[in-house]
Amino acid sequence: MQTVAIVGVGLIGGSFGLALKKAGFGGPILGVSSPATIEAALRRGAIDQGLPLADAAARADLIYLAQPIGRILDTLRRLDDLVRPGTLITDAGSTKSAIVAAARLHLRRGLFLGGHPMAGKEKRGVAEADADLFRGRTYVLTPELGQMLETPCAVEFLAWIRRIGAVPVVLNAQEHDRIVSFTSHLPQLAATALAATVAEHAGDSLSVAGPGLTDTTRLALSSFDLWRDILATNSGPIEQALAAYITKLEHLRDNLRTREIEGEFEIAAALAATLRK
Amino acid sequence: MQTVAIVGVGLIGGSFGLALKKAGFGGPILGVSSPATIEAALRRGAIDQGLPLADAAARADLIYLAQPIGRILDTLRRLDDLVRPGTLITDAGSTKSAIVAAARLHLRRGLFLGGHPMAGKEKRGVAEADADLFRGRTYVLTPELGQMLETPCAVEFLAWIRRIGAVPVVLNAQEHDRIVSFTSHLPQLAATALAATVAEHAGDSLSVAGPGLTDTTRLALSSFDLWRDILATNSGPIEQALAAYITKLEHLRDNLRTREIEGEFEIAAALAATLRK
Repeated sequence: MQTVAIVGVGLIGGSFGLALKKAGFGGPILGVSSPATIEAALRRGAIDQGLPLADAAARADLIYLAQPIGRILDTLRRLDDLVRPGTLITDAGSTKSAIVAAARLHLRRGLFLGGHPMAGKEKRGVAEADADLFRGRTYVLTPELGQMLETPCAVEFLAWIRRIGAVPVVLNAQEHDRIVSFTSHLPQLAATALAATVAEHAGDSLSVAGPGLTDTTRLALSSFDLWRDILATNSGPIEQALAAYITKLEHLRDNLRTREIEGEFEIAAALAATLRK
Repeated sequence: MQTVAIVGVGLIGGSFGLALKKAGFGGPILGVSSPATIEAALRRGAIDQGLPLADAAARADLIYLAQPIGRILDTLRRLDDLVRPGTLITDAGSTKSAIVAAARLHLRRGLFLGGHPMAGKEKRGVAEADADLFRGRTYVLTPELGQMLETPCAVEFLAWIRRIGAVPVVLNAQEHDRIVSFTSHLPQLAATALAATVAEHAGDSLSVAGPGLTDTTRLALSSFDLWRDILATNSGPIEQALAAYITKLEHLRDNLRTREIEGEFEIAAALAATLRK
């Protein structure tokens, strides 16, 4: 791995560049983004040079797609003609099935390995980039075939993933998308629905609220820009996660006065405690 | 207001005692609780003396019931014979209709004014008591008749509520219970249901979760001991709040790919931002 191109130098892309440098990567890191973002990323030290996609793709042996999902799908459609044979292409998109399918359809010369670092911040943009963003966080990889991980370029990429402090976890794309529909997309929609319901039924009475409502609606502050593509590319699993959640809420509603609800509180408290370990 | 009796000297009762002293209340503060709690409350300086209910009730001109809801209902059943005529009795229970109804049924000599300070902490017990717990927080009062608030003892009690830094808000008990079913009870059940759903469908994959799940399930750590009485004494409004929430979730599920969901994200984000002002 001599030359890296980061396409989309925002929070994740910029943090990946900073993390590589902190971990000792010495080759050039090329950035592909809008002129304003390139300028900020250069100032921040996250990239060494800004280039158009064609120029960066021709030079890189690792291309790291850190755009929003819809933009990653667009890039995959036109990337194959721009890369040298055997270039490793990876991404950091929050859903994987649609991206893996697009890579399968469009890439012949490039090798694709889907990825999803389970890291983030409330604020976006390269100004928020952080060399330690991935430290201690799970980094999901979704190879279409297990032997993909044994190719020299993938072995080298995984070594850098570990060097930046992340913990690689291998899943297939469908299983990834099913899991995150529960662990990430459902919490978002639960918080959005809660805030929207409170707005509709008690929006004039927010002085009569405890601190719990504030915590439970923090995710409702999320920008829809990020969520449009996630919802569109993972709607099947999300529908199933919502259905399971609605079933659970109906079960609680039907058992407000029975012992059954105590068992649900205990299961929920154990899960919440495990998350905090 | 010469002598105060606090019945149930836990987080809320203990904080009320400390807050009164900090605000300059000079009369004796009597505590009614288990021997271990009385000892801790005396050490903490939240009360001046521990007494059995009958002795404390005979001496106090304000009786502050800060027990769990079920215990408040029990105390109201036997309190009237113990108090001097005209004693003001108030409470800090999280639901109000059942408590106000019990007071109406059982009190003849005592004057009742229901209350609900919108304050709390994750940890319970007098060891967590804090003289500033009520500062800046809404303190709901639920008089059965508005003129109750003009009696001298109520006027004096309200002055102390303001002196401890709380902001009184007058509601009738039913309206209070409807509002908190949305602003407090629904967030709790949304978090419990979310954690229980994730435990069931993705409990083995928690390494594949972002920080949002942790925030959104913090309330799921709550002890069921507190919630048993809340759910039992406010089940009607809670059923309606859950029904509204389920309707909203179904609406999101049916609109994952339409522009409609963007509007819901905007309404939700505005509510979440308002809560943070």
